[in-house]
Amino acid sequence: MTGDTRTPVTILGLGAMGTALAQAYLDAGHPTTVWNRTAAKAAPLVAAGAHHAENVEDAVAASPLVIACLLSYETTLAALGPAAGAVSGRALVTLNSGTPSGAREMAAWATGHGARFLDGAIKNVPTAVGLPDTVLYYSGDRSVFDEHETTLRVMGGDTSYLGADADLAALYEMAVGGTLLPALLGFFQGAALVTRRGLPATSLVRYTAKWLEMIISVLPVIAEEIDTGDYTRLPSSVGLFHEGIAYDHEIGVEGDVDIAWHLPMHDLLRRAVEAGHRDHSIAALIEVLRKPHETA
Amino acid sequence: MTGDTRTPVTILGLGAMGTALAQAYLDAGHPTTVWNRTAAKAAPLVAAGAHHAENVEDAVAASPLVIACLLSYETTLAALGPAAGAVSGRALVTLNSGTPSGAREMAAWATGHGARFLDGAIKNVPTAVGLPDTVLYYSGDRSVFDEHETTLRVMGGDTSYLGADADLAALYEMAVGGTLLPALLGFFQGAALVTRRGLPATSLVRYTAKWLEMIISVLPVIAEEIDTGDYTRLPSSVGLFHEGIAYDHEIGVEGDVDIAWHLPMHDLLRRAVEAGHRDHSIAALIEVLRKPHETA
Repeated sequence: MTGDTRTPVTILGLGAMGTALAQAYLDAGHPTTVWNRTAAKAAPLVAAGAHHAENVEDAVAASPLVIACLLSYETTLAALGPAAGAVSGRALVTLNSGTPSGAREMAAWATGHGARFLDGAIKNVPTAVGLPDTVLYYSGDRSVFDEHETTLRVMGGDTSYLGADADLAALYEMAVGGTLLPALLGFFQGAALVTRRGLPATSLVRYTAKWLEMIISVLPVIAEEIDTGDYTRLPSSVGLFHEGIAYDHEIGVEGDVDIAWHLPMHDLLRRAVEAGHRDHSIAALIEVLRKPHETA
Repeated sequence: MTGDTRTPVTILGLGAMGTALAQAYLDAGHPTTVWNRTAAKAAPLVAAGAHHAENVEDAVAASPLVIACLLSYETTLAALGPAAGAVSGRALVTLNSGTPSGAREMAAWATGHGARFLDGAIKNVPTAVGLPDTVLYYSGDRSVFDEHETTLRVMGGDTSYLGADADLAALYEMAVGGTLLPALLGFFQGAALVTRRGLPATSLVRYTAKWLEMIISVLPVIAEEIDTGDYTRLPSSVGLFHEGIAYDHEIGVEGDVDIAWHLPMHDLLRRAVEAGHRDHSIAALIEVLRKPHETA
């Protein structure tokens, strides 16, 4: 023994993110074991002081804390198969994309083989690993989070625990990610409008950035309206957005863009007005989003 | 004459925003004339030193710079009707919501009556008027912007000129505003997912805020991809989003939400893949958004 008190950590999967995680643990002075299906990827980390395990079973056996950073729960289950006998008594953390049901399957496998299981999500790029502002959230076995919180924080300073249900991290990842494509489409449409007039899309960036910051600033009020069911706080009403439908035709004409992707949003606004939400905050739209549309 | 060198300003329309604008000009020491259809709204401003004009013609005649902050171009045209003979030789600035075609009509009326016309947009709430970070952009008669830039900057420090076409400010407002409803729907859907699990929507805010900040951070790259037509810089590909379609069913099940509003977005992703953009950045979606869907 060297007297080192830092927890030994194993990283499974050396894609861009897994490599960044392993490097962060090496930088923080943790004994670090790495494993990857194609061993060549381990070479730079071995040169930096990592121990390379020849097979996944040895990799798992090397540390009390095993962090898998593979593509999906399916990939992780397949990779861990040969190590089913080695996970017992260890803390297993998964950091991959996937669905809540995938997380539940993963948790069942891990606990079924005697591991303590924690699922997590890192909502950022590999270059952000280890920064104080980098967000990671976890769900599952609280004892893993409590015991290893300091070690987990090596991957990012804004680390939190969501709850005991192992699928909560995947649920939050799904809940958070849902703004991406719609917001990007809104920007693409705006870019189509300005570029059709011979102006660069880059000229729109500073205005859209401020606008998204404005949206960020109203999220706390919107969330409180949703939690209380009192849709009277935000001054932007369902009726105001409903009136805005009339402008969409002009977006199509001015931008020569296909506005078909607006039509179901119009439908939600109409249903919200019909349900009596005209003078309520736009947050009341969640009420019609929650209830599937019944055809007459 | 008092020796005051500050430009006299007239504000037409004393809603929440117009009142905030008039107050900002009073605070900055500008001789300020106000007019509103219902005169009672002028009282607090008069108490603060504003001159109240009995009718719109007198209001326009009182200042070389006239700023109309009414509901729409239609409302502004109707309100200015009696002052058609008074606008000649003055700088008229409009700050209302509306479409590019509405702005063009407004510009034709103003220049037809001998006014120099500038249309603008203030992308913020009344309480933000006058702050150094508050965004306003203008388009139309450059001489008005150049001559009155310092005076216009009283309303917000982040003031810029877009171009000589009078409808550009309305076009940018439309281009910027298009992210709002889609981004909010993404958040509502996320809130439905977490609240269905008994967790508060407020617990999602900090994660969604970080996620929207991430989106802001990639806008410059996306805009450059659009301007150059080189969709190879952002690592998030059309194919990656296309694979994500499979997750949407799970969003509907886990959140008990209506995901019908996703379907046209799926259609756009499929068309982008069919058009050969699978390995291109998601910004390539603008190519299919631009070209209306031809049915076979």
